[in-house]
Amino acid sequence: MTQLFTLHPQLEKDTHCLFDNESYFILLHKNATIPWIIIVPKTHQIEIFELSDEEQRVINTLTQSIAQVFRQEFSSEKMNIAAIGNIVPQLHLHVIGRKSGDACWPGVVWGANYPDSVYTLEQINHLRAALSKINDNIL
Amino acid sequence: MTQLFTLHPQLEKDTHCLFDNESYFILLHKNATIPWIIIVPKTHQIEIFELSDEEQRVINTLTQSIAQVFRQEFSSEKMNIAAIGNIVPQLHLHVIGRKSGDACWPGVVWGANYPDSVYTLEQINHLRAALSKINDNIL
Repeated sequence: MTQLFTLHPQLEKDTHCLFDNESYFILLHKNATIPWIIIVPKTHQIEIFELSDEEQRVINTLTQSIAQVFRQEFSSEKMNIAAIGNIVPQLHLHVIGRKSGDACWPGVVWGANYPDSVYTLEQINHLRAALSKINDNIL
Repeated sequence: MTQLFTLHPQLEKDTHCLFDNESYFILLHKNATIPWIIIVPKTHQIEIFELSDEEQRVINTLTQSIAQVFRQEFSSEKMNIAAIGNIVPQLHLHVIGRKSGDACWPGVVWGANYPDSVYTLEQINHLRAALSKINDNIL
């Protein structure tokens, strides 16, 4: 991973930054209708298998830890976890908390049109606090 | 993981079985238009984070190893890797080899309608042989 790293403008536009450390960004999708976190490891590789074993371990641990916090915070019934990157090639992982009957259910969120809603600053800060505990444990 | 495990009928219907061992199935989606593997760990958990650390390690290693073989075999430009499960709750991971200009590009394959095509038996056996090397290394 590298110090010289610029977040892809589409990811910057679509998200609130929850954490930005030397190894990764943790971003919250601005549309609060479906809870959606995006992890961006600070690497120029585009596939997970191109990362070192240790980088993969950190990303996998982070992804699954966030999924667990999401289930607690949003009572998510099913986590959707994915690395896609067809449109934004910069390596990023989606962690999305889904519920039966949500705005896209049972379809996927990618490419779907669904209503917009916004997080309050209080909600963002609450989520940052909930995630900070796992973040401290990983690095 | 358990001996008493029945593959979900939708997964059985949609795929060719490449491998079936004590820990997981490796399935090939029957539609050859976009190369698509589905890994089904033999567990009754529905989220990756509910697996033991060792089960997660096996699944992650397997997923990334298959992604590497797929890139070689199909010259895939971008791997789409995901655990979704909104429709089929049995835990399964998708490994999909994508190319710019393929039948769904740049959209995702889930929920998309695109042309059908079939693998020959020779193609299936070739892929099974290519994957058997990584399979041997993991268990």
